[in-house]
Amino acid sequence: MATGEFDLIRRFRDLLPGPPGDLVIGPGDDCAAFDGGDGRLWLMTCDALVDGRHFRLDRIDPEALGRRLAAVNLSDIAAMGGTPRFALVSLVLPAGFDEEASEALVRGVSSELGRYGACIAGGNLSGGDELVADMTLVGEVPSEQVIRRTGAQPGDSILVTGRPGSSAAGLAVMAYDGDTTRFADLVQAHSEPQARVEAGRAIAVSGLATAMIDLSDGLMADLGHLCTASGVGAEIRTNAMDLGESLQEAGSFTGIDPLRWVLSGGEDYELLFTAPPEAVEELAAIAAKAEECPVTVIGTIAEGAGEVRCFNEGGADVTPDDGGWDHFGSDNQET
Amino acid sequence: MATGEFDLIRRFRDLLPGPPGDLVIGPGDDCAAFDGGDGRLWLMTCDALVDGRHFRLDRIDPEALGRRLAAVNLSDIAAMGGTPRFALVSLVLPAGFDEEASEALVRGVSSELGRYGACIAGGNLSGGDELVADMTLVGEVPSEQVIRRTGAQPGDSILVTGRPGSSAAGLAVMAYDGDTTRFADLVQAHSEPQARVEAGRAIAVSGLATAMIDLSDGLMADLGHLCTASGVGAEIRTNAMDLGESLQEAGSFTGIDPLRWVLSGGEDYELLFTAPPEAVEELAAIAAKAEECPVTVIGTIAEGAGEVRCFNEGGADVTPDDGGWDHFGSDNQET
Repeated sequence: MATGEFDLIRRFRDLLPGPPGDLVIGPGDDCAAFDGGDGRLWLMTCDALVDGRHFRLDRIDPEALGRRLAAVNLSDIAAMGGTPRFALVSLVLPAGFDEEASEALVRGVSSELGRYGACIAGGNLSGGDELVADMTLVGEVPSEQVIRRTGAQPGDSILVTGRPGSSAAGLAVMAYDGDTTRFADLVQAHSEPQARVEAGRAIAVSGLATAMIDLSDGLMADLGHLCTASGVGAEIRTNAMDLGESLQEAGSFTGIDPLRWVLSGGEDYELLFTAPPEAVEELAAIAAKAEECPVTVIGTIAEGAGEVRCFNEGGADVTPDDGGWDHFGSDNQET
Repeated sequence: MATGEFDLIRRFRDLLPGPPGDLVIGPGDDCAAFDGGDGRLWLMTCDALVDGRHFRLDRIDPEALGRRLAAVNLSDIAAMGGTPRFALVSLVLPAGFDEEASEALVRGVSSELGRYGACIAGGNLSGGDELVADMTLVGEVPSEQVIRRTGAQPGDSILVTGRPGSSAAGLAVMAYDGDTTRFADLVQAHSEPQARVEAGRAIAVSGLATAMIDLSDGLMADLGHLCTASGVGAEIRTNAMDLGESLQEAGSFTGIDPLRWVLSGGEDYELLFTAPPEAVEELAAIAAKAEECPVTVIGTIAEGAGEVRCFNEGGADVTPDDGGWDHFGSDNQET
């Protein structure tokens, strides 16, 4: 979902003229970044939500859709350690999406951005047959604080904020059409995801993390992206996962192994980051305090070339076959 | 089409929290602009092209579509006097739009940006039912050089680059399915529009212009936007228009009054700008030299509140009723 995961450009980057020197980060990370010349990097990311692919218009209210659009973009800024600033919102509106709905969507974007002091600076409206809500978000970060995907080293610990898998579990319990009030926290994780902007900033300010990415495609898949970018591998210990009560209960309720949600569920918008073992305790405390959420050490960076393996308590390899989550099918061409 | 023309946001801007102080220009101009802190403004614009609204996929090749996507965004940067720098490209791709076509589209964007030293910094891909090619372009301009829509004063002369109406005339002669090689310049103006980036920069560096806008919706409509933003009116003299041979011949060929194309045709991506009479000669020469194109004085800014009137050689009011051009129907909600 992130700016950097623009395979089409990466694939034939060699055909394009080289970027100018002040484009510090091009395709291949959560955001692109250019040098502001005054000690700041300006971060840029874009993400689109398309009806029938990323949401169903008949099942989501426009204001919640706006908040989601903001959250997925905020998460990319958070993953670089940045502060979100200015957004452009580009909407393709079908005939049935009326003015009231459009205003609710924009209000949702604005309110979610406003939580972090960011704002809508402009946008574009077009007609079309299906609703597309596209957004570009610019953020800033002091140059020396930016965290990329590329810095993970063998031996580093792997940390994650919150409880990955909650969004997928929320979708599952909603599909069961059961007593979802029992799983209100999971349903909310799915329907109202929130970016970890405060944690991202605190991690960046600490200077302790070696690499970071946000979880949009699923923990295994996104850890794989981080490992590929860093030229390393990773080993996850399933018994280190902090499932929490809700995920375990939702597993019993649906008959689905909750570890599947944790490893392969998407759209959590948690932060996954790496740090040398000696920095882990301090860094985990900093991130947990910033966001008031659990922060868990789930494994270790290893030698390798992008491979992520999972081991259970007994040491057996329990790596799932499927990896990440694929956005309502195989049509999403990224990752 | 421009960032600033985001009526939805302008309309209920009062409901949104006020922007931070370093957002120098918000909705209401060709680009938004934020203060880089080092004497530069960073300009941001976005524009989308939607199949069936802004183009017909069965009539345009993907590389030309990419060049057009770049040109419409470059034109917004040019209209503020900026230098284009970094682009994000967000594509919604239907099943039938294959990898080869996607690469051609991106190649087209890249080649057009490359003419001005700008580049693609990242992007996003999604699946969807109809092709949407959306782009955000960031540019830069020294703070003291930026040209807004808001500075036109009664008595200022109104200047325009090139030959507005050429794109609409090109579309008309193509529709006649006649000997279009005879009107190759008009057909090219329609199918391969080019932004006036060099003229925009030269006008900005000169410091002589009071206001500027690019022509995307049509000369009357866009001059109306500039007048509304400046709190003035305008009078155009139709006999001052430099039609050129091609427009006149295309008028004879199709039986259409070429002035209609000039006043109401869209997608010309020429620059329209204003300046005090004593600066006109020097400024016109600067713009003409930068772009190697005609630059014509077409009228005068008057007192008023956004009204644009046209007068013929005899002094009769010949203002057309319809104003601008409306993108394949009334579905485009801007302007």
